[in-house]
Amino acid sequence: MNAKAKKASGPRRSVCPVAGTLDIVGDKWSLLIVRDMRAGKRTYGEFAASPEGIPTNILADRLRRLEEAGIIAREAYQEHPTRYAYVLTEKGGDLGEVLRAFVRWGKKHIPGSQTRAEIAAAEKNA
Amino acid sequence: MNAKAKKASGPRRSVCPVAGTLDIVGDKWSLLIVRDMRAGKRTYGEFAASPEGIPTNILADRLRRLEEAGIIAREAYQEHPTRYAYVLTEKGGDLGEVLRAFVRWGKKHIPGSQTRAEIAAAEKNA
Repeated sequence: MNAKAKKASGPRRSVCPVAGTLDIVGDKWSLLIVRDMRAGKRTYGEFAASPEGIPTNILADRLRRLEEAGIIAREAYQEHPTRYAYVLTEKGGDLGEVLRAFVRWGKKHIPGSQTRAEIAAAEKNA
Repeated sequence: MNAKAKKASGPRRSVCPVAGTLDIVGDKWSLLIVRDMRAGKRTYGEFAASPEGIPTNILADRLRRLEEAGIIAREAYQEHPTRYAYVLTEKGGDLGEVLRAFVRWGKKHIPGSQTRAEIAAAEKNA
């Protein structure tokens, strides 16, 4: 664990619920993993294959932190070697409202934004 | 500008509106500054005095990035020396929905969370 990861999972900065939430998911990657899980992705390899290209060391760190925070849970789906599938907990599923707010803001204010459903529809019509 | 700040304001990682939003505000501090501005704070000194204790170099970097992203605007309110007050743009104000989602998630899932209004009410009744 590097110093940055340790700090990120350290004590909360204040009683503010915004600060407390940012203590857990206030980085560029954690909510993308939650997004991927809501889209049905479950494995390390599936998360690593997302278009943003998360570095594998960051992916491993974020999965560990999200599990420690009770946002995701993992279960072994294969042995020798052991491989894990990740699922959102109820606490993690409740981040859906946060993600929907991000989608709306991004679609309104970031030109060229396209959701997964929009990309799929465009491919179907091509 | 350090390498990290440069990277954080670099090209977007994908067309996903969640990723695009996180490219701009995906860190532990930016949304706390937006929160403070929604609560009426306008100056560097007021942001620095918030309970989370943002380091001044990070505060200066985040104000610059938020201004570059069109989320905040600044105006000089004093000369010799020049001092600036910051205001949310319409684009920045639209982050209110994101903040409300964070508040709801934090209040539900992070024990001990208290909003500014709740703290004020408790102090009034003390």
